[in-house]
Formats: sequence, structure tokens, C-alpha cells
Amino acid sequence: MAALRMSTLFLRTLREDPADAELPSHRLLVRAGYIRRVAPGIYTWLPLGLKVLRNIERIVREEMDAIGSQELLFPALLPREPYEASGRWTEYGDNIFRLKDRKDADYLLGPTHEEMFTLAVKDLYSSYKDLPLSIYQIQTKYRDEARPRAGLLRGREFTMKDSYSFDIDDAGLDASYAAHRKAYIRIFDRLGFDYVIVAAMAGAMGGSKSEEFLATAQHGEDTYVRCTQCDYAANVEAVKVPVPEAVAYDGLPAAHAEDTPDTPTIESLVDHLNAHFPREDRPWAAGDTLKNVLVTVVHPDGTREPLAIGVPGDREIDEKRLGAQLEPSEVEAFAEADFARNPALVKGYIGPEVLGEDGKSGIRYLLDPRVVEGTAWVTGANVSGQHVIDLVAGRDFSADGTIEAAEVRDGDPCPNCGHPLESARGIEMGHIFQLGRKYADALELKVLDQNGKLVTVTMGSYGIGVSRAVAAIAEGTHDEIGLVWPREVAPADVHVVATGKDDAVFAKGEEIVAALQARGVEVLYDDRKGVSPGVKFKDSELIGVPTIVVIGRGLADGTVELKDRASGERREVAVDGIVDAVVAEVRGPDAR
Amino acid sequence: MAALRMSTLFLRTLREDPADAELPSHRLLVRAGYIRRVAPGIYTWLPLGLKVLRNIERIVREEMDAIGSQELLFPALLPREPYEASGRWTEYGDNIFRLKDRKDADYLLGPTHEEMFTLAVKDLYSSYKDLPLSIYQIQTKYRDEARPRAGLLRGREFTMKDSYSFDIDDAGLDASYAAHRKAYIRIFDRLGFDYVIVAAMAGAMGGSKSEEFLATAQHGEDTYVRCTQCDYAANVEAVKVPVPEAVAYDGLPAAHAEDTPDTPTIESLVDHLNAHFPREDRPWAAGDTLKNVLVTVVHPDGTREPLAIGVPGDREIDEKRLGAQLEPSEVEAFAEADFARNPALVKGYIGPEVLGEDGKSGIRYLLDPRVVEGTAWVTGANVSGQHVIDLVAGRDFSADGTIEAAEVRDGDPCPNCGHPLESARGIEMGHIFQLGRKYADALELKVLDQNGKLVTVTMGSYGIGVSRAVAAIAEGTHDEIGLVWPREVAPADVHVVATGKDDAVFAKGEEIVAALQARGVEVLYDDRKGVSPGVKFKDSELIGVPTIVVIGRGLADGTVELKDRASGERREVAVDGIVDAVVAEVRGPDAR
Repeated sequence: MAALRMSTLFLRTLREDPADAELPSHRLLVRAGYIRRVAPGIYTWLPLGLKVLRNIERIVREEMDAIGSQELLFPALLPREPYEASGRWTEYGDNIFRLKDRKDADYLLGPTHEEMFTLAVKDLYSSYKDLPLSIYQIQTKYRDEARPRAGLLRGREFTMKDSYSFDIDDAGLDASYAAHRKAYIRIFDRLGFDYVIVAAMAGAMGGSKSEEFLATAQHGEDTYVRCTQCDYAANVEAVKVPVPEAVAYDGLPAAHAEDTPDTPTIESLVDHLNAHFPREDRPWAAGDTLKNVLVTVVHPDGTREPLAIGVPGDREIDEKRLGAQLEPSEVEAFAEADFARNPALVKGYIGPEVLGEDGKSGIRYLLDPRVVEGTAWVTGANVSGQHVIDLVAGRDFSADGTIEAAEVRDGDPCPNCGHPLESARGIEMGHIFQLGRKYADALELKVLDQNGKLVTVTMGSYGIGVSRAVAAIAEGTHDEIGLVWPREVAPADVHVVATGKDDAVFAKGEEIVAALQARGVEVLYDDRKGVSPGVKFKDSELIGVPTIVVIGRGLADGTVELKDRASGERREVAVDGIVDAVVAEVRGPDAR
Repeated sequence: MAALRMSTLFLRTLREDPADAELPSHRLLVRAGYIRRVAPGIYTWLPLGLKVLRNIERIVREEMDAIGSQELLFPALLPREPYEASGRWTEYGDNIFRLKDRKDADYLLGPTHEEMFTLAVKDLYSSYKDLPLSIYQIQTKYRDEARPRAGLLRGREFTMKDSYSFDIDDAGLDASYAAHRKAYIRIFDRLGFDYVIVAAMAGAMGGSKSEEFLATAQHGEDTYVRCTQCDYAANVEAVKVPVPEAVAYDGLPAAHAEDTPDTPTIESLVDHLNAHFPREDRPWAAGDTLKNVLVTVVHPDGTREPLAIGVPGDREIDEKRLGAQLEPSEVEAFAEADFARNPALVKGYIGPEVLGEDGKSGIRYLLDPRVVEGTAWVTGANVSGQHVIDLVAGRDFSADGTIEAAEVRDGDPCPNCGHPLESARGIEMGHIFQLGRKYADALELKVLDQNGKLVTVTMGSYGIGVSRAVAAIAEGTHDEIGLVWPREVAPADVHVVATGKDDAVFAKGEEIVAALQARGVEVLYDDRKGVSPGVKFKDSELIGVPTIVVIGRGLADGTVELKDRASGERREVAVDGIVDAVVAEVRGPDAR
């Protein structure tokens, strides 16, 4: 491969930030000439960007091959039928691009390829002897995002690695999952940025074990929580509240309804309680109240179901957590008309009595896990302006089940060790999960087992956002003056900058570049004439190749400058030793 | 890279031909487990197929890089606007996939990317100093073919390498074109199949010089002609008829109309002439008559224009040649209603008198170039049942111009040397042409020249069908028992087959495979147990890796078999020398 030369490279760096870019990674990738926007969420990869993308693909490919996963390639343009069979043609809603061909047949641009992988295995394999199998592709995917944003982080056309494992039983799936997990750790280690592995919900996909690889990022879209003490980390959706032990309610006072006029909010209720029903040991607080929240659940088949959720009054419902629990159904707000349809509900004063399958409203009622048997609550009396005090769970009321929908807060106890949790932000880079038999069932992927009996295959699903990784790495490694690429993904190993007007400098530059290339070092060479040193330095900092060699005035004294982009450290090196010095930087001090 | 093992490879060879496959390449690629059909013209690449595809991509990439072309990557999902500006949003008709996003904005799946390349250069460049530039991508393209057929040869989702050159002037374009032409010759030489470079029409794209690289193929979709003597070769559309010299018409008899009842066809006319107006020197023949054919030309803006074409009566109009001459307009048959609208036209007896801008019909009239001044013809008299004899071109009639629309026949003179032409069939694999300023004009790609004046850039366009090449190579190199890959594109360098039940054979197989891998040889290893030697041999012949090593009974005597897939030649090799022997096959006898 020839050196990249700035004099001819299809590149123009920009001094100004693009108007539509919110995140540093987006701004810098555009300014440094790595990508260009074509339409919302749709980008062109310019030469430098494509090199980074290909480097990431190579790392992913090497590590997938290393665990025996086999690469294949599915089309992006897919017929409707398999997605109809799995139910996703409709489930995806507006999020997929649909189109018709000239014969009016329905197609979609694949958002993920579960159906195609499942059908390919069904097509080729028929026996337990064929398993286990792991296959993957690195491929262009499409999602019609409602709000494409943040450059490559949430695009509408993007590159993913997706792989699937196929096993005859759960033990096989566990082994396949473990192999992928190890490969992912190697991949993300090599990509060279900070990441965290968090427990995740399997979500709409069904299945059991599920983990996400998040790039830690101040501006990340995903919030996760981590323990301040142990190594627990989880997506907010996946945090399980430590359930308190049930307590005995013998001897607790009987429940009593009281007038609490004009107390439709938790705050007004607590004030009223402290004013009119003061407690001896401690004042009433929001956490003593039980708030019953109504929502409408819209099921995939379009049916609408009201749902009541009881949470301690000091916590809000977290929409993401609630949504994750109810997937693939969706959640809508409970409207005035819905209240009108359910006259048993007295807005602002709803209590457990009218809720649940046995309640007057018949509305399904789910409780936060903290509302354990034996705990006493202040809650609505189902009469306007009245609440019930000392209503004890398990004694005075019960529900149809529990739900993890209340917000998680900094300081909440770690489900693992009990120490306080804290929240942080990240970018989802990879997701591995035990998909189970959802698609194998829907598409009838069965093989003969040892006894000649047909059994449904169990699957694992493993994704990496490859184009997203370009932005996530930029986001995680940049500094205030430009991009700072980790070595394995950088568009070149070294950026050689020839400065000034002296022909000897450019001649020496050519010589050094040729020598580096001969050693297998990939070079970006700034051989532009008539461009000031200041502009060249700025460009080299913006572009972010990890090692920079500056050839300039020092050449007269036999030295050039060797600079580390990340640390900013620079040192003079004898010109005769520069090739060895660069090779040592690129491959480590022991390389030759 | 680890060896591919048949015991775990995601592959099932088929003994039966797929029902929908007409061509050998299609049948064999499916049967040998390289591709699988997902929808008409849409395929999945299984592991072996993907390896061949990637090998072709690598060769293309290396040779493009070698001429200094820079790789980038445009999206496949493209907004309507640039295609609207170039006029292609409508020109493409049903041939492109169109879709809308959730905000009802129009998009298409890119069939070619002229607009995107042009806009990218406009975005980044502004001066003659930035030129010349050559940029390319290897990318997935989409065309909604009316009749997707022949497997990968005419797909609806396919991979292409497309590149464009940008120059300030025609001399620069000539140089860029020449560089690409050389790179294409290197690429097609390395791909290892027979091809021919033919002169081509630039077609709808405008521009001047244009050549196609065709794989010679019995079942190819494209017909071309070649000289039996010199190296002239051209697409049928591009063949230029050698124009005879004009002859003097002094002394020729005057034209005279004659009754020729019931002679609406050339055949009936010739019979009538020989019966009623016999000639002394030779009988009348179809070539003595001038046939005037009417068609309707539909222009891109939707307007319809009648057109009359005069050709010697022994030649048919060639639709492809006619279409190529009239692009981007389209041609439709002249209907009864069209005749009714033009009462000057007497069907079956149409003569030049009523044609042309000065004729009664006012219909544009174009002549075959063979109808030169001084030649005498029998043609319609514009009266039912009458023809004119001795009507002399240039003396008695003229037209509005000439057109190359008559069929080319075997035996026609070569425009280069005059020797007979013959026709042959091929598959279009590459196309290089001087696009000129069509897109630069439409999208206003101008740069400042040496004098500070804005000038429009001139472009060259260069394509290679990468996925199509997989099928074309298979089509050109297979034999009756399977695929026969040229060395540089084969999915592996060597196919090692361990036969029988003897553990020593499999142990030796592992040893040989490891030694080959250590020498950098890519191995497909048939390590399946419980599969008969016959099945393994058949599979190895079907799969078509160029070198096959069979380890079997001979091992007891210290030998294995080395087989050349293409020639079928086989020889016994001492087991200790097999690794060297294979390396010599793979890299040539002097390799180590």
C-alpha cells in the first residue's frame, strides 16, 4: 500500500464546526474529513474514515474467526414473508424502510437479520450432528430512526456485525454465549477505548442472559448504573430492585380512611398529613405513600389494555424501565377519556381497593417490589378528597403481580452487595444475549436429536455496531484540539509532516516515508508545498494519527521531531534513527 | 486464518440442479454451496462464495490503488434531490427502487452513483490544482430488473466497483482513461478468464470514448462482433457500417412507378419484380429494395415523435442498435392509430417522397449509411399496390440524415480492415468511458482554472461488476463436473481430502494441513468421518479448488495424490514432499 499523501488525498479539513453537529465526535469526524452527511442519518465515508471503518471490521473479523464463527453475507433488500412469519413486519412499525418492487411485491431494508440466519440454517442443516454452529456477517443495515442524530451514533444506514449461535440445548447455548463474550472482550480491548459490560434486558427478543458492551461516554444516549463498591453494572432497564423481606403485620393499627381535601398530589398529601395527622416518631414523607399510576398498554395486535402500577410516592415511573418490562407492547399515557370509561377511578385518589382483577375496575394492578407484605401505606381511598392511612400490604390489599418500573436513583442499594449505586452514561457498542427459541419456533428450525426426535434449536444473538464504533471511539478518545485514534484503528500508523520551503526537507521526507513503508508502516505524508507549518500542525492534530514526525529546521542539525498525539510528548530524534524510533512506537520497543 | 474444515463448514453440496437455474454457473454455484437465493435476483453469500467475492474485491482494490485511485464509500440509500437535478429520477423509470421515509421524503436505492461522486468533488474541491482526481468505491447497488435472471449475472442487489476521474480538460481525461484501461487489463488478467475489449456506445451517458470488457461466454447476454482477421471487436450497438463511396448516377435510367399489386412484403415484392420486370444481368434480390420502417420515438419529456428509417430490404432493424442511437429516448412500435394520424403513409408501399421534413408527412427520415448517393432502389410509391423502380439516392430522393440501426450480420466487412466480421456472445464485466461534462454540468461542478476562470470539470466513468464476476468466472471456467476456479479467486489454495477410516490418514491430514497453513497456504480440509471417498471426490470436483491433495491408502506406502482440478492430471507424491509440492503449485515452481 502506497503512502497517503496530503497533496493528493481526497480531503479538506474544516476550521468551522458543522452546524448540525452536537457531539464532539460528530464535529471532529466532519471537520477532519472522515465523513460527510448525505441525508439525515446517512453518511459518505471519505478515504480516512473508510480506513478506520475497515480497521474496525478487520479486528472484529479476526476475533470472530478465532472463535470458529463463519462469515457469510445476507442481502440488505429482503422479502416481506419471513418478517411476516416472525411478526416483525408489523412490530417494527415506522422503524423499518419498506418498499415495493415493480411487481408490487413487498420488501424491506433489513434492520436486523434474525429471520435470514434462522432460515439459512433451516435450509442447510437437519441434525444435531451439524451443531453447534456460529455464523456472522458484517453488513449494511437500515433503520428509519425517528430522530437520527449524533452523526454515526444513530444513523439510518449503518454497518453492523451480527452473529448467531445455534445449539441443540441450553448447555450448548451457554457455551456459545461464553465464547462470544470472550471474543467481544478481545475486540473491545483491541479497539482501545473505555467500555463497561452491563447486565441488560433481553427485551422484545425474549431469551434469558443478556449483556451490553457500553462505551463510557459523557454524552452517551444510554444510562446505566454501577456499584460504587463491587463490579456490578447494569442497564437502567435491567436493574433488579433488592426485595425487602416481608415483615409481620401483627399489631399494626387497622386501616382508616380520612378526609384529605385538595390533596391530589403527593406533595400536597404529605403536607396535609403532617398538618392534620402528625406522627410521633417521624414526619410523614413521600416514601410513606403509595402512588397508583394508570397507563394504557397497546399490544402488538392493536388491542388496548389499562394497567395500574403502584409505586412508593417518592419515586417516579421510569418510562424506559416500564417499556422494557412490557415489550413488545407499547405504553401510552392514560387520557381523560380513559378515566371517563372507568368510573371506579377517582383521579388523584385512586386506591388498591378498586384495582386488580378482583377490584371494581377490573384493571390489572402491578406493584413495585418494595411494597412487600407487612408494609403500611397511605394511599387513595377511591373517594375524592379522601386517603386511607395504615393500609397494610398483604393484610388489606394485594395485586396481580409485581413490576420493575420505578426509577433507579443514585444511592439505591446494589442488588449484588448492597452498597450504593451510581448512574453513568454510555454508548451501546455491542449486545450479546441468549435469544432462545423465539425465531426457531416462528420459522420452524428443528433438527433431529440423538434419538431421532425433532427438537427446536436454541439461538444466541450477538451484535456490534461497527460504524457506530468509529464515532464511539472518537467520542471516547478525542481531546480539545482533535481526534486521537487508538493505534489499531488509526487511518495510518504515522503522520509525517514536512514543513517549510527547503527542498532538502521534502527530499528527506520522501526518503523517510519510503523507508517506513518498506518496514510495513502505513504513512500519511504531508507533502504539501505552500502550506504553512501552522496549518500542517493543526491538521495533524485534528486528524489524530497516533505518532507524528515533523521534519523541519532541525534537519540542518540532523534531527527531526517525534510526537505522541495522545500525550502531546515530543522529543528530538536523530534523523538516522527516526525509522527505528517510529517502528518502535508503532509495534512496541521490541519490534524490528 | 485457520483452515476451512468440511466437518464444520456451513455448506451442504447438492446433487440436484436447482429448478430455477438456466446457466451452468448458476447451477454450480448453488449446488456447490456458494450462494443461496433469497428472492428474485437477490442472493445470500455462503462462506465459500463470500471468499471468492472478497478475493475479487481485493484484486480490484489493489489495482485501483496502484493507479492512485482513492477508495471511499457512498451510502446505498440516497435522497431524491441529486437524481432529480440530473434528470435520472424519472429517466430510470421502473428500474430503480424508490421508497419514502417516515417523514414522507423520497429516497432511492442507488443504481449508480454519478451524482454522489460529482457532488462529493464539488463539496471538497475548487481549483485546477486539486485535479486530476480519481476516486472509487466497492459498494452494493440496486436495480429493479424487469427479468432478474441467470443467478448473479443479472441481480437486483449486487456489488460493483465504480470509479470516476475528474480532469480540467480533455487531455487530462484521455490520460485518466488510459490509466484506468491499463488497470482494467491487469484486473481482468488476474481474474483469470477469457475476455475481450470491445468498442461500445457511451449511450445515455453522453461522452465520447467507450469500451467494454466482456467475458467471452457462450450463454452471455451481450452479442458483440469481432473481425476474423484483425483485432477489431465491438458491441453490436457500436459497430459502424463502412460507408461505400458515392457513385456517379449519370446515365442511370429515370425512376418509374409500376403496378405491383399485393406486394406489401419484401419477399412478395421481389417475386413480383422477377416475374414481371426481370433484369438481364441478375435477378432482383431483397438487397435491391429500400424498406422504410416507421417507429415512434418517446422522448424523456414524454413527447412522442414518429420516425422513418430507410434500410436495404435484406436487413432488419436491430432494436438494440436503434435504441442505442436514440437514447435516452425510447422506441415504440408504430401502431395502426399512428398510421391513421398520418394519411400520407400507405402501409406496405411507403416511399421516400412523402418522408423527411420536406415530405408530405413531415416525418423525420433517416437512412442506413449504405444508401449512398448514386445507388438505385426499388421502393414504395406511396400508392397502394405500386412501387418505384430505379429511384436513385441523391438524384431522386434524400433524407434528414443517416442512422446505424440495421442489423450487423456475420460476414459484414470489418470497419477496420474490410475482412468479414463474425458474431460472438459475452458477459459485460467492465465498462470504461469518457463521460464528459453531463453530470458536472447538471450539478455545477466547476473549478477555477489557471486564469482564475470557472470551468466545468470533465469526468470519466469506470465500472466493474464485482458480484457478477463471480458468476462470469464460473461460467467461463467450469467443466461438466463442477467449478474450476482460477488460482487468484479460488476460495482456498488447496483442498486436502482425507479418505477412508484409518486414523493414521486423518492424523497425517492434520499434520499436512498445519504445515501448509504455516507456509501461508489457505486450506480447505475434508476431515469428515463416515463420508465415502466417492462423495468426497465429487464434492472436491464440484467445489473447484485448483489443487487437490488426496490422502488415502497410498499413505501406507508413503505417498499421497496431487491433483490439478483444471486439467485432471494427477500424480503420486512422496508424503514428505507434499507441502513443497503444493507450495510450488500455488506460488509457482520457484516459490519457497
